[in-house]
Amino acid sequence: MNILVTGAAGFLGRRLIEALLQRGSLTDRQGVKQIIRRIVAFDVVPLSGIEDERVQVVCGDIADPHVLKGLVSAETDSVFHLAAVVSSQAEQDFELGMRINFAATHNLLERIRSLGHCPKWVMTSSVAVFGGQLPAQVEDDQVWAPQSSYGTQKAMNDLLLADYSRRGFVDGRSLRMPTIVVRPGKPNLAASSFASGIIREPLNGQESVCPVPLETRLWLMSPAQAITNLIHGHELTDEQLKAGRVINMPGLSITVEDMIGALRRTAGDAVVSRIRLERNPAIEKIVGSWPGSFTARYAKGLGFTADHDFADVIGQFIAEYPPQGA
Amino acid sequence: MNILVTGAAGFLGRRLIEALLQRGSLTDRQGVKQIIRRIVAFDVVPLSGIEDERVQVVCGDIADPHVLKGLVSAETDSVFHLAAVVSSQAEQDFELGMRINFAATHNLLERIRSLGHCPKWVMTSSVAVFGGQLPAQVEDDQVWAPQSSYGTQKAMNDLLLADYSRRGFVDGRSLRMPTIVVRPGKPNLAASSFASGIIREPLNGQESVCPVPLETRLWLMSPAQAITNLIHGHELTDEQLKAGRVINMPGLSITVEDMIGALRRTAGDAVVSRIRLERNPAIEKIVGSWPGSFTARYAKGLGFTADHDFADVIGQFIAEYPPQGA
Repeated sequence: MNILVTGAAGFLGRRLIEALLQRGSLTDRQGVKQIIRRIVAFDVVPLSGIEDERVQVVCGDIADPHVLKGLVSAETDSVFHLAAVVSSQAEQDFELGMRINFAATHNLLERIRSLGHCPKWVMTSSVAVFGGQLPAQVEDDQVWAPQSSYGTQKAMNDLLLADYSRRGFVDGRSLRMPTIVVRPGKPNLAASSFASGIIREPLNGQESVCPVPLETRLWLMSPAQAITNLIHGHELTDEQLKAGRVINMPGLSITVEDMIGALRRTAGDAVVSRIRLERNPAIEKIVGSWPGSFTARYAKGLGFTADHDFADVIGQFIAEYPPQGA
Repeated sequence: MNILVTGAAGFLGRRLIEALLQRGSLTDRQGVKQIIRRIVAFDVVPLSGIEDERVQVVCGDIADPHVLKGLVSAETDSVFHLAAVVSSQAEQDFELGMRINFAATHNLLERIRSLGHCPKWVMTSSVAVFGGQLPAQVEDDQVWAPQSSYGTQKAMNDLLLADYSRRGFVDGRSLRMPTIVVRPGKPNLAASSFASGIIREPLNGQESVCPVPLETRLWLMSPAQAITNLIHGHELTDEQLKAGRVINMPGLSITVEDMIGALRRTAGDAVVSRIRLERNPAIEKIVGSWPGSFTARYAKGLGFTADHDFADVIGQFIAEYPPQGA
């Protein structure tokens, strides 16, 4: 089995590749378990640090159709399309967001359509497709009303993927991911970056700014859970997806205040004292437009799963990335 | 005031231009009534039969960015974007549908963004963006789940327009139109073509096939009502559209059986006997995925209006296009 992972050098991409290598096999479209022989790890910067002869690291511009031509062939059995620019970046640079978040997806789907072999495809969508007047808990039939260019681009991808799948050009699954927390590394331009930052930085002895009110409710998923669901999404059969290719993931619904409370119980008052509350209207506007809770009935019926306890999520992070400098 | 109408030689385009010429003025973005000085009537075939020095007929390929460059300038105050290929055509020819229904809209919006003057924009979307499990009456917060490439392309346009409007690139309004009935002329490749055909052909002494079950419920709007709503959509202020740029229009909810009943009362049994029931699974599948009724609360609050009596709609058609050969 040959797999393409886009956004391979990103946080989720790297973890997904590690998980696939460890797993060693995936199910093909015929429902047959196949040994993973090759993973093409594509990104704009090279994936480093994974030494495995099954992994082929490729760099390039994902929005360039010529690049895609070399990247995908009739031998490509499955695509995990994770490449994207994050929400605040897509908001600041409209053209970049349209190019990487939408045109690249469209071009990649077009390349696949031209080959005619209908590979499996798993991609990450986002709760940022929702906005406007929302119920306390969002149902699967809630209208999409993105309040950001990022959300717009993700919603357009979802529509495209659903139609390409309906027409048999690709066997697609789009997972509407909650905010992934706790991410390692540095803050990024995602409007949701603070949600990891208020846990990660204090644990590492650094100050972190919380730009939204404490009562803000977030819809979260841990990195490990995200990888489990991406692989689960791949393993579902065509037959199971009759009710649609775009799936609102289950998640953990929690307020920022309760996140901080879990951090206090796990790591103590001194760590929590490094969080500074300083509201940022631009971030508050984007994050505040995202729903804080979903029923995710369709996803649950399909066997997708969620984290249950935020203290466990913090514990996972500490185990994987032991605090430094605290 | 300078206006661009795309799809000008189409049925709605021609009627809209006639209505604009008769009206003589529209409201600009500042809320000031402006004399209509020029209407650029663009289509792939020339608009003929309208003799008015304010109308400039232009032909070309609407998906070609070079064509659009010549078509839209900073002097363009308002755009009515009606150009599209119809549903069955977009389903039969995927590339054509993507090119005319989506890429052209995107290119036209990009041309406008490059000019930076934020004109008004009114376009027609479609109830074909809905599908899947639907309630008897669709609310404004119903998720989009197109079951056709046409519906997908229209939904993508709606998302783009909303984001371009939010960012101030254009002052857009997308009207989700019901099926427009009774159209004059010949059947076309729209899956909904029969809805006009079962009225028009029998009135003109010809046989017409009804490809869907009699209990199929349709969501209809007369041509005159459609033009009224397109112009009303233009006249709304930016301020009134705070709750969104994509508006499900009000309409007339009626079964095919009741349409035929109205035809019988208006034109008699002999006319109705020319309707032949012959189900077509392909058309039935597309039409059956469209909702038969909407609350259209947002639209009604904004002052959009609907037809109330289908016999009146038939009467309008007979008055405008007196039956021939019956």
